[in-house]
Amino acid sequence: MQNRQVLLKSRPTGIPQAEHFEITERPAPELREGQILVRNQFLSVEPAMRGWVNAAANYSTPVGIGEVMRSIAAGTVIASKNPKFAEGDRVMGMFGWQDFAAADASAVTRKVKENDLPLSLSLGMLGLNGVTAYFALLDVGRPRPGDTVAVSTAAGSVGSAVGQIAKIAGCRTVGIAGGPVKAKLCTAAFGYDVAIDYKEPRLAEALAAACPRGVNVYFDNTSGPISDTVMTQLALNARVVICGTASIANWDPPPMGPRVERHLLVKRAQMGGFIVFDYQHRYEEAVTQLAAWIREGRLSYREDILEGIDACPDAIASLYRGENLGKRLVRLHT
Amino acid sequence: MQNRQVLLKSRPTGIPQAEHFEITERPAPELREGQILVRNQFLSVEPAMRGWVNAAANYSTPVGIGEVMRSIAAGTVIASKNPKFAEGDRVMGMFGWQDFAAADASAVTRKVKENDLPLSLSLGMLGLNGVTAYFALLDVGRPRPGDTVAVSTAAGSVGSAVGQIAKIAGCRTVGIAGGPVKAKLCTAAFGYDVAIDYKEPRLAEALAAACPRGVNVYFDNTSGPISDTVMTQLALNARVVICGTASIANWDPPPMGPRVERHLLVKRAQMGGFIVFDYQHRYEEAVTQLAAWIREGRLSYREDILEGIDACPDAIASLYRGENLGKRLVRLHT
Repeated sequence: MQNRQVLLKSRPTGIPQAEHFEITERPAPELREGQILVRNQFLSVEPAMRGWVNAAANYSTPVGIGEVMRSIAAGTVIASKNPKFAEGDRVMGMFGWQDFAAADASAVTRKVKENDLPLSLSLGMLGLNGVTAYFALLDVGRPRPGDTVAVSTAAGSVGSAVGQIAKIAGCRTVGIAGGPVKAKLCTAAFGYDVAIDYKEPRLAEALAAACPRGVNVYFDNTSGPISDTVMTQLALNARVVICGTASIANWDPPPMGPRVERHLLVKRAQMGGFIVFDYQHRYEEAVTQLAAWIREGRLSYREDILEGIDACPDAIASLYRGENLGKRLVRLHT
Repeated sequence: MQNRQVLLKSRPTGIPQAEHFEITERPAPELREGQILVRNQFLSVEPAMRGWVNAAANYSTPVGIGEVMRSIAAGTVIASKNPKFAEGDRVMGMFGWQDFAAADASAVTRKVKENDLPLSLSLGMLGLNGVTAYFALLDVGRPRPGDTVAVSTAAGSVGSAVGQIAKIAGCRTVGIAGGPVKAKLCTAAFGYDVAIDYKEPRLAEALAAACPRGVNVYFDNTSGPISDTVMTQLALNARVVICGTASIANWDPPPMGPRVERHLLVKRAQMGGFIVFDYQHRYEEAVTQLAAWIREGRLSYREDILEGIDACPDAIASLYRGENLGKRLVRLHT
């Protein structure tokens, strides 16, 4: 049984490109006591993976050169030397970009219990994307009924969940996305009250028209010119959630932007960072609620599925090029 | 009875200079029903007054050209057409840069009840400076025992209170001030564990040495290069209090600075603005505690008192030149 693996070949300084990875084939790993053998069915592709391979101090140790690319994945247990897992269990966790993972129990994020729903969801709406949207919006953004919630990368896998959860929370939602297709998706698929295509001119005017009383909650995944515009239109006591920084290719050194302090001061606004790994102990709470909303038809999702492990090396770069429409996954088998 | 008044003569774009004001003399005002006549003893000079005279949208309506300069002041009621106030009451409120104010009750911030303490304190440690330090640190900064609290403008009227309240809260305090005299004042008068003179080279190294486990709470009054340095040394879950922006002369348009989003994200840090006027309903709570600490000898203060109303026009500009050592006041009579 051969195991195809995507290894980090060299260290990128910004967004990892196809050339930074190589695919090798090795025998499937042997299990040690306590481990399980997972056959990956879906591999995840996340913007955050950029940070995982960069050398700069970050919220996780960088992937080493020659190591299997770190990745969340979902699959099935095909052998177990751990009494807590049985063959046939569906699991998701840090299994890496490879066919088979010999995983310690600590690498398993959770057993997938929603057997009535597609396994791929555990990498998207019922995975870190949905859980991120849920806690980052509700705990850092603290939306109140009637608030105007503006979301950047609004049609993305996190943003689309944020917009829908904000609607469920009784808010007015304004989605900011790039291009007419994604803008249309915001209103047609994800229930945004207004969609703004930031590639059109006059973003500030469009935002002001969409948010006549200012922005109460700004959920940001970009950290660039879109944010700079939204920051000038915050309402009193606004909350700004810093969930990602997709528009900045390189943070070493940090690029310059308009200072935010005066906006925060004058508006008594709060700006706070969020990383989902801090919420691991509350993961089930979010998944249970998100799954219920999916079953009730209140939470829609889009997936963008690439076929086969050969799609991995370019998958992060093309994510940053904005080529996906929905949560990006790589399917290894059906 | 003549009333000398300092009027706003023209609108500055940045820091108001002496030339933007003129002093006139008019008859003392007549009282309408409900008003009191206050003889001002001390006028306050605050960094925030820059914002009060600038045209850009701010947290208060700009002072009109030809109007008396808005100011907090403390004095004595010498005539009253309001049953809630009696001759001889000591009051502080928005009485303006003038000898006498005919004030509605709404202009009175509070009656000064601490008759065992100097009246001037009601413009400093028992006034907006102390109340600002108290609520901004405790509510936005949320210090916990053992935290490292870094404070910019640490020897100033707000900063010196912040450092001392943080010590009372069980924190380690690091004061950042300009020049050896203010740095010395931080440790000698205000109990900071470490003082850093930011005019010396290698601020980042000095801060790292003073805060080996990072900065848990950063209380900022500057919004410039000092902040940019502190932001790179935040501890996990740090809180950044934006209380003032003294180092930025002009916010229209906002100047550029290194983007903060990545620091906030990686450190799951919170950055929030504070304006004391939001806490008017809790003013007495802070003053009662601050006065108790002063009487117990746990809270020190410095005052920088200019003599006579002629000192007013240049008083804000020289405050921004860093010429004061302590809370700046103008004394009109003894």
